[in-house]
Amino acid sequence: MPAPETIAFRDDTLVLIDQTKLPEQLLTLDCKTVEQTHDAIKRLVVRGAPAIGIAAAYGVCLAKGADGKPNREAYLHAVECLATSRPTAVNLFWALDRMRRIAESGEDNLPQKLLAEAIAIHDEDREMCHSIGRNGAPLLAGKQGVLTHCNAGGLATSTWGTALAPIYHLHQQGESLEVYADETRPLLQGGRLTAWELSQAGVSVTVLTDSMAGSLLRTGKVGAVIVGADRIAANGDAANKIGTYPLAVLARYHDVPFYVAAPSSTFDLELANGDLIPIEERERDEVACPHGVKIVPDEAKVMNPAFDVTPADLISTIITERGVVMKPDREKLAEHLGAKR
Amino acid sequence: MPAPETIAFRDDTLVLIDQTKLPEQLLTLDCKTVEQTHDAIKRLVVRGAPAIGIAAAYGVCLAKGADGKPNREAYLHAVECLATSRPTAVNLFWALDRMRRIAESGEDNLPQKLLAEAIAIHDEDREMCHSIGRNGAPLLAGKQGVLTHCNAGGLATSTWGTALAPIYHLHQQGESLEVYADETRPLLQGGRLTAWELSQAGVSVTVLTDSMAGSLLRTGKVGAVIVGADRIAANGDAANKIGTYPLAVLARYHDVPFYVAAPSSTFDLELANGDLIPIEERERDEVACPHGVKIVPDEAKVMNPAFDVTPADLISTIITERGVVMKPDREKLAEHLGAKR
Repeated sequence: MPAPETIAFRDDTLVLIDQTKLPEQLLTLDCKTVEQTHDAIKRLVVRGAPAIGIAAAYGVCLAKGADGKPNREAYLHAVECLATSRPTAVNLFWALDRMRRIAESGEDNLPQKLLAEAIAIHDEDREMCHSIGRNGAPLLAGKQGVLTHCNAGGLATSTWGTALAPIYHLHQQGESLEVYADETRPLLQGGRLTAWELSQAGVSVTVLTDSMAGSLLRTGKVGAVIVGADRIAANGDAANKIGTYPLAVLARYHDVPFYVAAPSSTFDLELANGDLIPIEERERDEVACPHGVKIVPDEAKVMNPAFDVTPADLISTIITERGVVMKPDREKLAEHLGAKR
Repeated sequence: MPAPETIAFRDDTLVLIDQTKLPEQLLTLDCKTVEQTHDAIKRLVVRGAPAIGIAAAYGVCLAKGADGKPNREAYLHAVECLATSRPTAVNLFWALDRMRRIAESGEDNLPQKLLAEAIAIHDEDREMCHSIGRNGAPLLAGKQGVLTHCNAGGLATSTWGTALAPIYHLHQQGESLEVYADETRPLLQGGRLTAWELSQAGVSVTVLTDSMAGSLLRTGKVGAVIVGADRIAANGDAANKIGTYPLAVLARYHDVPFYVAAPSSTFDLELANGDLIPIEERERDEVACPHGVKIVPDEAKVMNPAFDVTPADLISTIITERGVVMKPDREKLAEHLGAKR
């Protein structure tokens, strides 16, 4: 990991790097209750599809009954509660489903069993990051520059991230490439988080506004675009941070490969295509009043979808912990994920 | 004009709406010297290709010699000075050329002649705006929504603007359409200025981050994209605010027409194509430290080109005060501008 641990669990406390404070301050937030965990996910203290799955799993472990002691009902209630924190990333529901299954399986040693499951989810995520790094590295090797959007890095997972994992893998092997990071309005996860964690790791990074990606691609300096995903439908359509879809269109127009890196827990095979993925609409002020400065007059309307959907036909390759799927479609993905469900 | 006059000249003073303060405050800035005018253009107190041409013309009228009185040498020096304020918009050089020609033409009544020329430039601009409005309106009539970028409105000119002129024209005739305004990072001219002036005029406007334009276009709500330009080469390649080029690519991908509206003073027929247009690189902090909040760590590099170039083949139609040029190319533009030079 290029920086302190995004998520830790110790002394019955979920400890999160407060990602709303970066890059100005590196602070952690202690969550001791389910409600605090729900709030931390909702406010984006912790964000990134895999990371919110891990945080939610630990959050379930914090549940207490009315008597202040853990019990099955409280655990199941925690699962329901945490599922309402964010609507789009499917890893959240995937992790909570795993916790629910344990909670429903019996009464014996529930606290220990649930904590073991959360730790397993966390450990599997570390493995996943390294596997995606290995699997994706050959696709980026030898490129002069790579463009990414939002933060699909260590801060979005337990360690190397998804989209950034191949970059860390190559960096560890002594191969450096220039990473171009879209700032990613409205919440600036690219400028704030991706630039911070890559800099911490000694990877050279250049930040641009989202509007500069087109002319950057036109220069030919970018050999690949790589992003994460919050939910991928059965046909390969991928929801990711708002601004991903136009990058995919621009990559196609400039004949640059467009890669999506995500663990298999990001796939929602119950959704036939991306039009069925629920898209979170967030509050007006994230756009209209950044950092407390009003930049949009009250009379004007504002839109603020947190995600967009990139159709599979714009995705060159999907990289998972299991390998790569070139020109993804329903059949190839079903085969790739065959052992999953 | 939907709002107070962007530029006025009275009592030997150039009075500018301070566009850096909108939408929170509607303030004016008084310029009494050439240096103050230079600073106002450079700091974007006044911005927009036609508006900086008008402001610079009046700025020349403020020149004084060492004795505190106007003279030809001081006027010519003012022309040189003001030409260094911004590098990309050709209207600046076009207006200053007109002022230089007057200054070089003789000694008699120079102050009166120069002021008359500045007023003529200002008056012609008003005419230009209304003509572009008339010429562009049929292209937008009947559309449900129109997407624009940056501010090519009244604040960028003397009155209706260029890209917004057809919208004001239709609005005056009782036809309303929804205007979608890209916020336009880094300096947010869309969220701050376009949303403000359209709201003042009673035109319905929705602000989005630049990264949302792709998914908005995918919804089919946008029937046309219309933008201004800062310089157009002889072949029709058009420099405009950074983020315009990716919109043109997205419009083409979604089969939505892409219109550029600009006066004939925006054409630079001495440049064969857009690769020859100088692109202003602005300071790091506009991207890295908006409103004084550091959003990019010091270790990361930042790029900040103020403009990009849209190749002519992505432009459906160029709208000028003279008419429209569909599928613009060198020959059609030469004919359209034939009477110009």
